[in-house]
Amino acid sequence: MLIDKLIGAIAAKRNPTVVGLDPQMDFIPEKMLKDNIERHGETPEAAANAFYEFNVSIIDCVYEDVPAVKLQIAMYEQFGAAGIKCYRDTLEYAKSRGLIVIGDIKRNDIASSASCYSTAHLGETRIGNSAYRAFPSDFITVNPYLGEDSLNPFFDDCKKYDRGAFVLVKTSNPGGGLFQDVVSEGVPLYERVGGFVESVSAGLTGERGYSNIGAVVGATYPEQLKALRRLMPHVFFLIPGYGAQGADADSIAHAFDKNGTGAIINSSRGIIAAHTRSAAGFEDSVKEAVYKMKKDLLRVLKF
Amino acid sequence: MLIDKLIGAIAAKRNPTVVGLDPQMDFIPEKMLKDNIERHGETPEAAANAFYEFNVSIIDCVYEDVPAVKLQIAMYEQFGAAGIKCYRDTLEYAKSRGLIVIGDIKRNDIASSASCYSTAHLGETRIGNSAYRAFPSDFITVNPYLGEDSLNPFFDDCKKYDRGAFVLVKTSNPGGGLFQDVVSEGVPLYERVGGFVESVSAGLTGERGYSNIGAVVGATYPEQLKALRRLMPHVFFLIPGYGAQGADADSIAHAFDKNGTGAIINSSRGIIAAHTRSAAGFEDSVKEAVYKMKKDLLRVLKF
Repeated sequence: MLIDKLIGAIAAKRNPTVVGLDPQMDFIPEKMLKDNIERHGETPEAAANAFYEFNVSIIDCVYEDVPAVKLQIAMYEQFGAAGIKCYRDTLEYAKSRGLIVIGDIKRNDIASSASCYSTAHLGETRIGNSAYRAFPSDFITVNPYLGEDSLNPFFDDCKKYDRGAFVLVKTSNPGGGLFQDVVSEGVPLYERVGGFVESVSAGLTGERGYSNIGAVVGATYPEQLKALRRLMPHVFFLIPGYGAQGADADSIAHAFDKNGTGAIINSSRGIIAAHTRSAAGFEDSVKEAVYKMKKDLLRVLKF
Repeated sequence: MLIDKLIGAIAAKRNPTVVGLDPQMDFIPEKMLKDNIERHGETPEAAANAFYEFNVSIIDCVYEDVPAVKLQIAMYEQFGAAGIKCYRDTLEYAKSRGLIVIGDIKRNDIASSASCYSTAHLGETRIGNSAYRAFPSDFITVNPYLGEDSLNPFFDDCKKYDRGAFVLVKTSNPGGGLFQDVVSEGVPLYERVGGFVESVSAGLTGERGYSNIGAVVGATYPEQLKALRRLMPHVFFLIPGYGAQGADADSIAHAFDKNGTGAIINSSRGIIAAHTRSAAGFEDSVKEAVYKMKKDLLRVLKF
């Protein structure tokens, strides 16, 4: 089962870090961008090619030390079809390096449209008698606002194809509470969403007690994270907010169960922009950032 | 202001219909699909080209009689980069025919990523000294679960570029109430979201009393629609759920203000698949479906 593979990869590398491949123009080494603009002009293709080369460089630096990468698709959509091709190609390259890949797409819609998103990112698109994967992600992220029938197409494909989905429960942004924290009958909305995800997940657990249906819970709200860990014992957490967004290992200590599993922690800028803040070369600064994060996490985490 | 243009176009055509360009394989005329597969094989390119030709045919049938089209991007994502190119090309073609175009993308994320989505779908992507539009939509749809700071990047671009965003308030699907209907202090969540959208919109109104920040409210919940119309007097509604999802003109009579404006009603399958249910030719059956819907809406609507 996919979630058992993820837990196994975290244990094998003794590292619950997922590297966020969320490139920005000013993270790209100057020569890499310049060469592409010389070749293609100031076009989306030039930017998308530079992003791809950048992602390959990062993946080559980190694949031995982390179990997974996460791609924020918004960064790629800015470059239209060329950006989307780069998104897909990066997923492929990361998989070829043995990494588990998370498509951070936060999609959702009513069931008939949600089915199409799920086909695109978890399932297989049929054309005549052929079937192919539009985007070869292992896990994706999904938004719960439209309710259960809008999430079922994703859950169905997770079962059918052994893939995974992290449902947004409590997000890491400062204003996330406007609707997520609204309390009804003593229960904040994020706990209501969390309870729903637990009820789905509990019936689908693998060898390690977790299922392929996970949750996004921000590191920036440690008390809520602790409460959600108790409320959702069968749900694996994808945790954004470490590093650039302000949370450290102490904030997320309670995300893990007594075996030191149950969560994977994302860092994007902290790792992929490390070279912009360091006098060491590209490879050394990125590797150093991964090592420092791992060391910080292992302070609070027993394997 | 964009919303005034939309209201003007609805009045000029005496028709508050938006045609949903949400193609499915079995809506495509057999020869159109076959020709593309012969040319390109059973590839995403063949499917995307067939979708584009189909969209052009539909647009050519409807552009004189409706003010706008709405593209459900999920349908296109299934075909990866080729599908996304088709999505973009369809937006372009619809604009060249004088239509207002709505990208039904339901995106959202924390602010830094939301900014990228907004750049892609409302703003301009910068590459070196050049700027270009990844997707030339006039309006988009956005999801509110992540709160105000996640929506502000979209609202900012709506102001900066005179574009629009419809925030999901009450969706049309049967299970939409699971979280949207949760009541806190006597107020269901969808009204709380609606009240927030009204507070943003009220300060940004144009000549006709509405702003570029609208709301998605499903036709399938007439009582809630009526309550939301009262609660949100400055907010223009995009209304899905008519036709194939079960609602008729009587269900949406209360979506309009006393001047007969304030809403645009989507129909997808009801129009774009009309030719699959009729012995009349493609053009006649599509035009007939548009005419019937207009007639039904004008029963409850005074211009």
